[in-house]
Amino acid sequence: MREGTRAKRILRDHVSKIVSLTDDQFDYFFSHFRPQCYRKGQTIIREGDKVSCEYFVLEGYLKSFYISEDLKMFVLQFATPASWASDYNALYDGTRATTSLDCITDVEVLCLSSGDREELCSEISQLELFFRWRINRDYVAAQKRLLSFMSNNTRHRYEELIAQYPQLHNVVPKHLIAAYLGVSRETISRLYHA
Amino acid sequence: MREGTRAKRILRDHVSKIVSLTDDQFDYFFSHFRPQCYRKGQTIIREGDKVSCEYFVLEGYLKSFYISEDLKMFVLQFATPASWASDYNALYDGTRATTSLDCITDVEVLCLSSGDREELCSEISQLELFFRWRINRDYVAAQKRLLSFMSNNTRHRYEELIAQYPQLHNVVPKHLIAAYLGVSRETISRLYHA
Repeated sequence: MREGTRAKRILRDHVSKIVSLTDDQFDYFFSHFRPQCYRKGQTIIREGDKVSCEYFVLEGYLKSFYISEDLKMFVLQFATPASWASDYNALYDGTRATTSLDCITDVEVLCLSSGDREELCSEISQLELFFRWRINRDYVAAQKRLLSFMSNNTRHRYEELIAQYPQLHNVVPKHLIAAYLGVSRETISRLYHA
Repeated sequence: MREGTRAKRILRDHVSKIVSLTDDQFDYFFSHFRPQCYRKGQTIIREGDKVSCEYFVLEGYLKSFYISEDLKMFVLQFATPASWASDYNALYDGTRATTSLDCITDVEVLCLSSGDREELCSEISQLELFFRWRINRDYVAAQKRLLSFMSNNTRHRYEELIAQYPQLHNVVPKHLIAAYLGVSRETISRLYHA
């Protein structure tokens, strides 16, 4: 019961940054989520999987990543408490996952299926507004990150990362931050101590 | 009149790939757009501008780009017929433009203001669904491009570009395609002839 209350509070705080829902609307929304716990190192989505859910993080850290043909790992995204994760390409297009999602720490999430999300959006216009603005912001963040990759501005990329996730470097190993920024571990050490 | 009919048809074909609107709904939607023509080389959004509109392209090609401190140009996006362009960071956050948008060819667009978009979304749920799914797809495309930059897969990036815009290399100068792919002009020539 107390667990449910905490999860509700975290999700509600997050949603209310974009839209305001009545108690009944929020309870109805919340009732569509399935709580799930994973251990550090566990894989939630594996490359090649069908993907039918997205995950709202209550606690812990995840990474979404891609392994290239020459076995190099690239971290596409970190997911931290009160953020979302999935393979959105697969989720939205109904294709197989091209990235994987796993747990950097022990993790608690709430899962929402694609079918439920679409139904909720058609039932409650405030939820459609919420999901539209959530993705608007994610899109803008992806474009900013793209520009910093194009212009090869590692320091800027690092500063944006720290601004976005102030706690990240206390939790996430340096080699993963390097794989997110697309730089070597040595460069990361220089950034840390600059 | 015939001009309006053509513009309507292009926008309607585009919208109907995601949602279906009644004739009245579509006419109401269309009535919020302002047609506008620009000449080749004209700037629509300049870095530092306030941005209140997004642009649906009826004819011609635009580029959204960023100039770094050392005066290098990076093309964030091309906009081609039946696609949208703006500085979405500035448009969504109400901040000043960090990228510019200008015309590679003569261009005809339909402008939609942010205020009108939000009003339309609150009035017609199918339009909110349309804008949500449009941005879902743009987000996935931005993530794919990001991954190909991270993994430095130029050939893949080039093939994705050609698949997405088959006519592009007939219209857009090679140096702009190079600035989109983040490679030198010499690399582009090798890709063309591979």
